[in-house]
Amino acid sequence: MPLEIYNTLTRTKQPFNPIHPESVGLYVCGPTVYADSHVGHAKAYIMGDTVHRYLEFSGYLVTYVQNITDVGHLTDDADEGEDKLLVKGAAEKKHPMAVAEFYTRRYYEDMTRLNVLPPDIAPRASAHILEQQELIQQLIDKGFAYVVDGNVYFDVARDTEYGKLSGRKSEDQAASGRVESRTDKRSPQDFALWKRAEKGHILRWPSPWGDGYPGWHIECSAMSAKYLGLPFDIHGAGLENVFPHNECEIAQSECGTGVKPFANIWMHNNMVTVEGKKMGKSLGNSSYLRDLFEIYDPLTLRFTILQSHYRSTTEFKPEAIEAAGAGYQKLLDTYYRLEQKVGDVPRRALTDEERAHPLVKQFVAEMDDDFNTPKAVAVLFDLARETNTTLADPNRYDTLEGLLQIWRALADDVLGIIPTGRAQGQDNLAGPLMEMIIGLRNQSRADKNFALSDKLRTELDKIGIVLEDSKQGTTWKKK
Amino acid sequence: MPLEIYNTLTRTKQPFNPIHPESVGLYVCGPTVYADSHVGHAKAYIMGDTVHRYLEFSGYLVTYVQNITDVGHLTDDADEGEDKLLVKGAAEKKHPMAVAEFYTRRYYEDMTRLNVLPPDIAPRASAHILEQQELIQQLIDKGFAYVVDGNVYFDVARDTEYGKLSGRKSEDQAASGRVESRTDKRSPQDFALWKRAEKGHILRWPSPWGDGYPGWHIECSAMSAKYLGLPFDIHGAGLENVFPHNECEIAQSECGTGVKPFANIWMHNNMVTVEGKKMGKSLGNSSYLRDLFEIYDPLTLRFTILQSHYRSTTEFKPEAIEAAGAGYQKLLDTYYRLEQKVGDVPRRALTDEERAHPLVKQFVAEMDDDFNTPKAVAVLFDLARETNTTLADPNRYDTLEGLLQIWRALADDVLGIIPTGRAQGQDNLAGPLMEMIIGLRNQSRADKNFALSDKLRTELDKIGIVLEDSKQGTTWKKK
Repeated sequence: MPLEIYNTLTRTKQPFNPIHPESVGLYVCGPTVYADSHVGHAKAYIMGDTVHRYLEFSGYLVTYVQNITDVGHLTDDADEGEDKLLVKGAAEKKHPMAVAEFYTRRYYEDMTRLNVLPPDIAPRASAHILEQQELIQQLIDKGFAYVVDGNVYFDVARDTEYGKLSGRKSEDQAASGRVESRTDKRSPQDFALWKRAEKGHILRWPSPWGDGYPGWHIECSAMSAKYLGLPFDIHGAGLENVFPHNECEIAQSECGTGVKPFANIWMHNNMVTVEGKKMGKSLGNSSYLRDLFEIYDPLTLRFTILQSHYRSTTEFKPEAIEAAGAGYQKLLDTYYRLEQKVGDVPRRALTDEERAHPLVKQFVAEMDDDFNTPKAVAVLFDLARETNTTLADPNRYDTLEGLLQIWRALADDVLGIIPTGRAQGQDNLAGPLMEMIIGLRNQSRADKNFALSDKLRTELDKIGIVLEDSKQGTTWKKK
Repeated sequence: MPLEIYNTLTRTKQPFNPIHPESVGLYVCGPTVYADSHVGHAKAYIMGDTVHRYLEFSGYLVTYVQNITDVGHLTDDADEGEDKLLVKGAAEKKHPMAVAEFYTRRYYEDMTRLNVLPPDIAPRASAHILEQQELIQQLIDKGFAYVVDGNVYFDVARDTEYGKLSGRKSEDQAASGRVESRTDKRSPQDFALWKRAEKGHILRWPSPWGDGYPGWHIECSAMSAKYLGLPFDIHGAGLENVFPHNECEIAQSECGTGVKPFANIWMHNNMVTVEGKKMGKSLGNSSYLRDLFEIYDPLTLRFTILQSHYRSTTEFKPEAIEAAGAGYQKLLDTYYRLEQKVGDVPRRALTDEERAHPLVKQFVAEMDDDFNTPKAVAVLFDLARETNTTLADPNRYDTLEGLLQIWRALADDVLGIIPTGRAQGQDNLAGPLMEMIIGLRNQSRADKNFALSDKLRTELDKIGIVLEDSKQGTTWKKK
């Protein structure tokens, strides 16, 4: 069975046939860098990261492009409102590009803590004004866009395929009366490609249509084409981007360049649900990742997200995170015991024999089924059982090194849930110190010095560390 | 005495008079992101960071801009050779923008480990093609630049002030015969503002003069003006950039905009010397920061650099780093003992009384003298002596909190040498664990259980941690 991916465009799961046999072009809509990342970003970029990692594990050379939106994303999707960066810049008394710089760095930090591997190219919208202008000019030349007083709009009526991704043609604003339609648009469903900059608007560039700035959607059309070529293999985004953002990307790219389709496969991740007030309190009234990281280990959050399918919602109740965390800790315990037993062996690719291991085959089958990470995680629990059995049987120790390499491939390379220096920061003293303390406690118990062993447990508890004893030994975790 | 800064432009130390009374515009030439940062980068950006930090300590609102060069920096300063990003991209089989992304992130990581605070805005050359083209057009319109077959050159003969920063007019290549002068330049000393992209050149943009890419120097002229306005207060760079890079920036900006001077003060940092082969071996044959971080604590390297003046060379012999590290560790020991004694008090600004403390006044006087960090560090050693004396005298304990705030202001805020979560990564468990172990050891010694106290010391030693006992208590450090 080859890899199958659910394509929003066709509404079916379909076999993945890359355009080039050995390489894959992957584009995922990135953040608008005017605020910190929240749980929704975590879900979207863990989806992108999982696709990236699994395709590489499957042998493809992946070019992963994820944009940084630092201009043009207005506070209202209907081409009204203000630029989000300008609003934040005014509030913080900073240049909007200082806002972008600040939140871009914090975005990188948050993703690093979630062990999300960086994309190969992270193009900024403000860095591709010329490319966006070129595409807009093509659309005007071909009659798909029109200029009104320094604004350029896409003429939706001219694009017979508009709506093919979302099934929608407009936000029906005129009908709902939610927003007054702009008088200079031919139709309320038309959308902005270029906006005239009013006096005092800081984010502005010269253009053939006067000083202005790009509409939000055009950046992804211009930058994906620049770095991946057209068509490319996979375009990912959050479900909330299907309309209008992704629909508009398709319209702009296909009408402007004449290449169809723009992207072969459209993947969309579902939401992380955080139940209003009831959740708010225990999560500190925030769904910002930085706030969650104060309470939960970032990789536990990653694991929680992987335990639901990217097309399902992820429930972020504290009990759900804690339950996921307990399972995750069991996996890690087994992994660490295995690693300790095998010792320091170099990483290597799996052999054909290891690839044929029933659990590896099952893991691959689950991931080939539209990246079914919850079922892939379930396979890891089977792998943990097999590992524990093997660790308990000295006759089977010759297979331990192979098991470790399988863990590294599946749990670290593909799912990214093994804590590494990268995700954990540079200070690795806690590990050796805890090993030392656990050794001391074991010794004191062997010596029947229970005063000392109890004291060690109590003192650790005070600084938030819990010891867990099992047949296989003692492990520790942060509370 | 107000702050005085040595100005390369006037070759004198002169009083600092900011253009706006309360705010300062600071621009420092940033890295070309085609390789990892080396010790020279550390010195340059620690200089920029020190200026940034000290001006903020002095009460100014600083806007710190540092560019990221991702296009146009050729392998040869004389407008010949290839683009460094393209060369690396070809070697790594990556898009040049993937090379830029990769090394930009690593640059951020390296600087974070050196506790260099990020600039407010980090504009990329490729993100300001339009701004560069606008300035080039101004130069053409005013007769300071000419177009030859898709290339645009600055006409050095037209700029009577060219050479005022460096005292040089050209690299004298024609005279030395080192490089064949390009036949399409009017004079060999002219330099490129825009280069025609040959077929197959990936980094290219449309322009009024045909498809091409900017010369290296024009980005700093365009981006400093965009984010700081002209003139601005301070422009910093490495000494090796005085000619041609900074000289060309002045020529472009002053001739193009008519605003003189371009920047009021030019600061240039000297080199880090690493003595050829002799140094190479012990430093792992590399001056890359990442390699040095394997051997030395990053903040020890920062401290070593601060122990020489930015306009002097820094000698990076292992013995020099180790000697600096020993002194640094003594300072930290005192700081930690003080912090432990005072407990968890919130940070606050210094009171007028604390600002009038003789050592604070001396520290400020040294920093006001062209950022004399070696002398400022010497003041910290005096502060350590005073702190130790105070810690030894219970009658003076009421002054300890003030001393701690002074340490925080001078050693942390201004010099950036106190290890913090930011520089040390996220895992802060080692501190509490060590406190627990030291407490346990103190208890076991009080109980005359020397077997246990000795065992604790031995076990810590095995994992590379050394305990140091003194009258004031026990501290620990990594070997």
